[in-house]
Amino acid sequence: MSAEKPAPAKLKARQPRGFVDRGPADVAATERMLAVIRESFSRYGFDPVETPFVEYTDALGKFLPDQDRPNEGVFSFQDDDEQWLSLRYDLTAPLARYVAENYDALPKPYRSYRAGYVFRNEKPGPGRFRQFMQFDADIVGAGSVAADAEVCMLAADTMEALGIKRGDYVVKINHRGLLDGVLESIGVTDAAQKLNVLRAIDKHDKVGDEGVFDLLTGGRKDQSGDFTKGAGLHGSQAESLIKSLFGGSALIVGWFADFTGDHGRPLDDMNKYGETGTFYDNYSVTREIKSWPLANFEVQQACNDIDEIIALCESAGYGSSRIQFAPSVVRGLEYYTGPVYEVELTFPVTNEDGQVVRFGSVAGGGRYDGLVGRFRPEPVPATGFSIGVSRLYTALKAVKSPIVDAKNELPLVVVTTMDNKSPEFMPGYQAFVSTLRQAKDDNGKPLCRADLYLGSSGFNAQMKYADRRGAICAIIQGSSERDAGTVVIKDLILGAELAAASRDVKDSAEHKAKQAEAQFSVPVEGLVEGVKTVLARHG
Amino acid sequence: MSAEKPAPAKLKARQPRGFVDRGPADVAATERMLAVIRESFSRYGFDPVETPFVEYTDALGKFLPDQDRPNEGVFSFQDDDEQWLSLRYDLTAPLARYVAENYDALPKPYRSYRAGYVFRNEKPGPGRFRQFMQFDADIVGAGSVAADAEVCMLAADTMEALGIKRGDYVVKINHRGLLDGVLESIGVTDAAQKLNVLRAIDKHDKVGDEGVFDLLTGGRKDQSGDFTKGAGLHGSQAESLIKSLFGGSALIVGWFADFTGDHGRPLDDMNKYGETGTFYDNYSVTREIKSWPLANFEVQQACNDIDEIIALCESAGYGSSRIQFAPSVVRGLEYYTGPVYEVELTFPVTNEDGQVVRFGSVAGGGRYDGLVGRFRPEPVPATGFSIGVSRLYTALKAVKSPIVDAKNELPLVVVTTMDNKSPEFMPGYQAFVSTLRQAKDDNGKPLCRADLYLGSSGFNAQMKYADRRGAICAIIQGSSERDAGTVVIKDLILGAELAAASRDVKDSAEHKAKQAEAQFSVPVEGLVEGVKTVLARHG
Repeated sequence: MSAEKPAPAKLKARQPRGFVDRGPADVAATERMLAVIRESFSRYGFDPVETPFVEYTDALGKFLPDQDRPNEGVFSFQDDDEQWLSLRYDLTAPLARYVAENYDALPKPYRSYRAGYVFRNEKPGPGRFRQFMQFDADIVGAGSVAADAEVCMLAADTMEALGIKRGDYVVKINHRGLLDGVLESIGVTDAAQKLNVLRAIDKHDKVGDEGVFDLLTGGRKDQSGDFTKGAGLHGSQAESLIKSLFGGSALIVGWFADFTGDHGRPLDDMNKYGETGTFYDNYSVTREIKSWPLANFEVQQACNDIDEIIALCESAGYGSSRIQFAPSVVRGLEYYTGPVYEVELTFPVTNEDGQVVRFGSVAGGGRYDGLVGRFRPEPVPATGFSIGVSRLYTALKAVKSPIVDAKNELPLVVVTTMDNKSPEFMPGYQAFVSTLRQAKDDNGKPLCRADLYLGSSGFNAQMKYADRRGAICAIIQGSSERDAGTVVIKDLILGAELAAASRDVKDSAEHKAKQAEAQFSVPVEGLVEGVKTVLARHG
Repeated sequence: MSAEKPAPAKLKARQPRGFVDRGPADVAATERMLAVIRESFSRYGFDPVETPFVEYTDALGKFLPDQDRPNEGVFSFQDDDEQWLSLRYDLTAPLARYVAENYDALPKPYRSYRAGYVFRNEKPGPGRFRQFMQFDADIVGAGSVAADAEVCMLAADTMEALGIKRGDYVVKINHRGLLDGVLESIGVTDAAQKLNVLRAIDKHDKVGDEGVFDLLTGGRKDQSGDFTKGAGLHGSQAESLIKSLFGGSALIVGWFADFTGDHGRPLDDMNKYGETGTFYDNYSVTREIKSWPLANFEVQQACNDIDEIIALCESAGYGSSRIQFAPSVVRGLEYYTGPVYEVELTFPVTNEDGQVVRFGSVAGGGRYDGLVGRFRPEPVPATGFSIGVSRLYTALKAVKSPIVDAKNELPLVVVTTMDNKSPEFMPGYQAFVSTLRQAKDDNGKPLCRADLYLGSSGFNAQMKYADRRGAICAIIQGSSERDAGTVVIKDLILGAELAAASRDVKDSAEHKAKQAEAQFSVPVEGLVEGVKTVLARHG
C-alpha cells in the first residue's frame, strides 16, 4: 500500500527438469507426422477417440516399469473431495477405462486410435523426458491373434507411409508366454517376482552375467552406491536361468542380446550375433524353441501364437524382412499378457559416445487382456501399440524424410515501417500487409505469409529482423516513396548473394543489373505483382 | 501367494468430474478446425511454438479470476526436490516464461501461436470443464497499439476462414484504462481492490444494482448461503460508481450491460440497449466518453488508443461491422494492462432455458505488458488472444460450417470372417482386407478404409457390426465361395433401402433386379472393381 515498498525481486525464467519447449520446425513437422499416422490408422478402419489427461489414480493402476521411486512414476494430486487424481502415464490405461465405461455403446471388436502427451514422474536424463507424445492404435474385444497380426502390419505400413524405407525398419514380435514358461520351468510363478526377474534379465546388456546374477538373487549395488533390491531367486535358479538364456546356442544368445530398448547397440556387437540382416526364417526359430528342454506347455502355446501371426502377415504380403519373431523383445509394462511387439529402426546412427549404433525402437505394444477386465464382469481381450512420436521425429530427421522437411511452408514477406514513430503512417503500412495476406498465386492458393514490423527500431534493425525471420523479401516505403505513390521491394536472397560478391564482381555491369533486380520500385497498386516476381525467382 | 485369495472387487470405470472423452466426430472436426486456424495465424507471419503442460507454480503466477478456492484454480503437486509444479491454466503465462528464457535468441517483436489443453481446478458445471483447449496468438515486444490492431484483424479473418459469415461475429475492443480511470476518479487505486471492484461490476447481470452494492462494500450472501467478501468501498463510493455505470445514458448503460461473458443474453434485453445491430460508429462512443465527468487523463488516453486501433483496422478494410469498440468487455484475467478484446458470435441460439440468445464469446485476449517483465530486467510489452476451441466447435456446428461436417472421410468397407472359428481361413480374409487398404481410386487416391472383423461372433452379429460402424459395403466369403474362387459384395446402403420397402414393392421385378445389385458375387481378383462399383453408387 505504500510507495516505499521495494521492487520485488525478478523471478528466474526456467523450466522444470524433463520438460521441453518445442520450436517451429519441431511443431510443424510433428503436425505432418501426426497427419500421416492418422491417415494410416484410419485406412485400417480405426476411429479416433481421445480421453482426458487426468484420471482417478486407481483407474490407471500401477503398471509402470520403474517402481524405484515412492510415487511409482506418476504425477498425482488430490481433488477437493480428497480422491487421488493422476496425470496419465500412457494412453492404454485410460483407453481401458473409456471402453469399460462405454462398453455397451461401442461396436465390438472396437478399433480406435489417439495421439497425446503422457507424463512420467521419473528422473529425467538424455532422451528421457517427463512429458512426451504417444500415438496409439488398439483393438479391444478381439481375443484372436489375427488382431495382433493386424497391429503388426499396421505398424509396418505406418513406417513406410512416414518415409522409412523397407529394410530400414523391422516389426519384432515376441510373446510373454515364452519367458513366463521358461520361468515356470525353473519354479518362478509369483507375478511380482516374475516381473523383477524380467527386469533383471532386461539389464544384461549393461551389467553382464554377474550383475544379472546379483539382481536375480539378493540385489546389486551400482557404482554410484545405489542399491537395487534383488528378485529373491536361489543361486541355483539364477545360475540355471543365466545359463539357459545367455549361455546357449548363438541363436538363443542372440535373442536376449538386445535388451537395451531405445538406446541402440554397437554394430560390432550385433554383427557378432548376426542381427544386422535377416539371419533366420521365422518358423525355424519357433521350431528350435519348441525342442528346447525348458519349453513347457506355455512356451509351446506361445510359439503356436507366433507361428499363426507370422502366417497371417505372410498371407498379406508381409514377410520376415518386415515382421520378425524376436525373442529378445521384453517391453517393460506390466499389463501385457500375450504377444508383444516392437518397431525397430535398423539404419545406423552415431550415438553420443561416437559409436555407430542401430537407431533402435520407435514403437511398441502388445496384448493386454486383463486391463479392461479390471472394470468389467466379463473378460475383455485387447491388443495395441504405441508410437513414441518425439523419438520417431528424430528418426525421420536422420533419414531425411520429406515429412519433416520444413521447406513446404509459404514464403514470408516482411513489411517494414520506416516511419513507425509517427502513428499516422501506420495505417498505410497496415494496408500493404493486409493486401499481401489476401493475395493469391496463379492457382488461386495463398501467395505468401506477411508480417508487419511492429517494433520501434530503425531501418537497419528492421532489415536484420526480416533476415532473422527468414523472409524472402521486404517491402519499404519512406516519405519520398509515399509522395510518389510507390513502394520498394527488396529481394533479400539475391541481396545477400550480391553483398557476398568480391570487389571485382561488384564493379561489373552484370552485378549492377542484378542490383537493380534485387531492389526495385513499383507503384503501390503493383505491390502484389512485384512480390510475385521475387517469389518466382526463388521457386 | 495362496490360491485361497478372494477375487478382487471390480473397479468402477468413471471419469473425474469436469473431464470429458471425445469421440470420432469431435476429434476429426477439431483437427480440421486447428488446421484452418493454424493456416490463418501463419498467414499473419506467426510461427508455432509449444511449451510443456507443467511449469513451476511461481512462474505461472496467480492471475486467475476465481480466487474463491484455497488452491486458486490451479492443479499443483510437488516435485521430488519439493518445489511446487502446476498444470498450466492458460497458454499465456507459459509463453511469458518461454520468451523471457529465450529472449536474446528470438526475433523481436516475436509473433508466435500455439494450441493446447489448459487446466482449471474449479468447480465443474454445464459447459464449464476442468480441461479445455485453447488456440493462442501473441506478439511480444511490440508496445504500439498497431500490434493490438493486428490481433483484432487476425481474429476477424480467422472467424471467416472457419466459415462464420461476416455479420455473424464481431470483434469487440475495450481498454483496461477506461474502467481503471473511472475507478481512480472515485479514489480506488489499489490493484487488488480494483480487481475486486471489476469482478463485482462483472456480476451486475446476475445480481442487479443491490447485489453489486453489497459486493462493492461489505460482501454478499447468495441464496445457497455462500458468502462472497466485498471489495471494501465506502457506501458513497459504491453508490457513485453504480450510478455512473448503470444509471447514465442508454449508451453508457449499454456498455456495461453485457458482463455475462460466455453465457449469452436474451435478445429482448439486448434490443433494449440497441446491441443487436451496429447501433453506433466507433468514434462517436469514444467522443461521448471523453466528455464524461469521470473521464480523467487515463480514460482520455484509453480512448485515444481505441481510436488508433479503429483507424488501423479501417485502413485495412475492417470496419465497425467487424471490429467494434465495446466498453462492456471486461476479461477476467488479472494480467491485462491495456486494450482487451473479445470475439462474440452474434447469431441467435436457444439456450438450456429455452431462451433465444446470442451465441456469445468464443475468443478473447488483450495486452499484458507486465507478464514477461516479471522475469526480465527490461520492460517487455505484449499482446495476444486466445480461442476457446471446444466452444468454437459448438458454434461451428450451430452454423453448419463445412469444417465440422464429417462427411469428407473415406468410406469404410468391412471384410467379414464367416469361418472365424477356423484359424486356417483367416489368412485368406486378411489378404482381402490388405488388398482393399492398398487399392487406389481412378485419381490415384486411397479408395477406402477397410476393417477386418476380428471378433468370434456369427454372421448376423457381423452384419450388425458393419452397420454400426457405418460401412458402405461388406465382403463375404463362405466355403462355397471359397471353393468357387469368388467373394460376395453386399451393398449395405442399398440393402437397407430394399429391406425397408413395402410387400408390394418387394414382389416387383424392379425390386428383384435391385436386390441383385445390392448383393453380388465376383471372382476374388475382381474384389477391388466390385467395391468401386458400390462406392460409385453412393458418391
